This record gives sequence, structure tokens and C-alpha cells, in this order.
Amino acid sequence: MTIERLEQQIQFIVEIDKLKQIVRQTYLTDVSRRENSVEHSWHLALMAMVLAEHANDPGIDIQRVIKMVLVHDIVEIDAGDTFLYDAKHSESKINRELAAADRLFNLLPSDQADMFRKLWDEFEARETRDAKFAHALDRLQPMLHNVITKGKAWQKHGIKKSQVIQKNSLMKEGAAPLWDYISGLVDDAVEEGYLSE
Amino acid sequence: MTIERLEQQIQFIVEIDKLKQIVRQTYLTDVSRRENSVEHSWHLALMAMVLAEHANDPGIDIQRVIKMVLVHDIVEIDAGDTFLYDAKHSESKINRELAAADRLFNLLPSDQADMFRKLWDEFEARETRDAKFAHALDRLQPMLHNVITKGKAWQKHGIKKSQVIQKNSLMKEGAAPLWDYISGLVDDAVEEGYLSE
Repeated sequence: MTIERLEQQIQFIVEIDKLKQIVRQTYLTDVSRRENSVEHSWHLALMAMVLAEHANDPGIDIQRVIKMVLVHDIVEIDAGDTFLYDAKHSESKINRELAAADRLFNLLPSDQADMFRKLWDEFEARETRDAKFAHALDRLQPMLHNVITKGKAWQKHGIKKSQVIQKNSLMKEGAAPLWDYISGLVDDAVEEGYLSE
Repeated sequence: MTIERLEQQIQFIVEIDKLKQIVRQTYLTDVSRRENSVEHSWHLALMAMVLAEHANDPGIDIQRVIKMVLVHDIVEIDAGDTFLYDAKHSESKINRELAAADRLFNLLPSDQADMFRKLWDEFEARETRDAKFAHALDRLQPMLHNVITKGKAWQKHGIKKSQVIQKNSLMKEGAAPLWDYISGLVDDAVEEGYLSE
């Protein structure tokens, strides 16, 4: 171990503290405030631990999924959080996030920069079974918070059921049982009047 | 899969959202506010991914360490965060946390409740190599934040170097190189005048 290597690692660890400042549109379940991307990421990691059995593919590597969701939002330190339903900013999202990945992961020693980058690329590509399950969790969590807060973020932004379905049904690729569960709650939300058709 | 099982899992996932409200004494590196226990836990998980090579025992299972640090503070939902240097509340900490563990982990289906409880018990006992490394990270992170914020939390609570050393030198059991590194920075803090001898 060289001191330079440890110092690079510490620099990365200090830099990622900034992700605690990136506020998302999702509200905490008690509606006291919006959550940040670190809180979201931790929640996904716990969901991975608890919900692994609902993955479509029983061969998923849940350890990799946990790492993937812990890392997936780090690029937002530079790129900011892009609201799922914001078409305008979603267009520029990829380029902003690629530049962020280049800068942030390369703070690490090169072998670790590669490892983090590969994990993030895999998440973004959504092709492997691990990435598909990670994405299912990434969509499930804000939907769950919306259901519990009687559609707080949906209402604030005038989101309709058709948009929720369109943007989140990719959950089926990774975890059909979780999609079935949450889409049932989305139907209930319409019935109870806090999500419009 | 029964719907009851999934509903128990979801109930746990919703309950642990409350950990985002448990504020610690540690300040964010930009000193804008204190961090919460979820942010701390996520940070430790990332540190585990980055710093694994500095563990005393090369045989540690970093996947288990990651899970352990993600879970280690969930009991604070009921028990609150106990400041490391708060002798009075540290006395009652064990009983408060044991009651919290009983309630919170048992929201899960019993097989998962057992898995989470064993992981938490192992962390608390600090006997295995994985738990020792997890504790080293748990001590390193707030020290690092103190060093970067020029002793913000240390100064607020009148903490002295002797206390910092006494309470954190157990890091040596899990990661001697990280203890060497951070205790060097503690010496610098004294020299620069933001930690008293």
C-alpha cells in the first residue's frame, strides 16, 4: 500500500459526501421533506437485501445489485438529479452523467475507477439481470413513497397514471411480482382520488 | 411467494424510512448541517468498497461488511443516536438498542428477521474479522469529517485529543493502516489548533 493510493481513496470518499446535498423529488414517507440521493441509494440497498427473492431471474447476484444501487447515483454530484417525468432535462441527462462519471470515478486509483465505472455502465445499460433488478428497485421506491404520501410528488407535478405506467413498467423486466404489487397500489391511488387517470 | 410475506417485507422497508430522520453529531464536510444515520450508513458502505484492502485480515468478506454497515444503525429508529463521547447515555444504549432490534427486525418474515438480527448482533459483538473492520470504518468516517471541518463537532462538544484516541483506537483491531492514517491527521489537528491536547 502506498500513501498516494490511500490518499486518492480518501479524496473520493470525501468527494462523495456531496451526494448528500442532491435533493430528489420524492418525499419521505412522513412528508416532512424531500429525500436526497444518498438516502434513496441506501434505501435501495436495503430493498435489495429484503426483496431479492422477487427477482425474475433467481440467478441474480444480490451482492452486485447492492453495490450497483449504492453507486448508481454518484454521478448526480455533478449532473444533478433528473426527475423521471422531466422530458426536457432527460434528453441532456446522458451526456451530463457521462462527464460526471469520468471525473468522479477517476478520483480513485485506476483499478478501482474501472471497477466503479463498469458497475455504473452496467446499471445504465440495463441489459444484465442484475441491472434489470436494480432498475426495478430504483422505480419501486419512489412509487412506494408516492403511494404512502397519497401522491405528494405526483400531485405536485401533475403526474397522471398513464405517465406512471409508461415510465415504470420496465420494472417487469427485473421483478414482475414487484411490478404487479405496485401497479395494484397505483390502481388504488386512482380509485382513492390522489392520482388522476 | 405469499402476498403476506411481501407485505411484511414492504412494511419493514417503509418503517426504515424513519432512519433518515435520526440526526447524528457529525457535520457534512461542507458544515452546512449535521448528517443523519442513513447518510452515515451509505458512506460506510462506500468506504467498505473502497478501503477493503486496508483490513488487517485479508480474508474479510467485504460483501458481509457492506451489509453489516448498511444495517448497523437501523435500531436507532427507536433507540436514537448515542454520541460516542456521551457517557451517560452510552450506559443505557445497549438495552434501548436490544429492544429496538426486537421490534424492528421482527417486522420482517422470520427467516429474514433472523438474518438481519444475526448480522446486527455480530456487528455489536465486534469479535469477527468482518465486524472489526466494520467498526474501524464506523469510527474513521466521523473522525474524517471532523478533520475536514476543522473539528466542528469536536469543538462543539469540547472533545479533547485524549478522548478521541481513547474512543477510537479500537480501529486498530480491524484496520491498523487506517488508524495510523487518521491518527496522524488527529495529531495535525492538535498542531493546527482545532483539537485540544
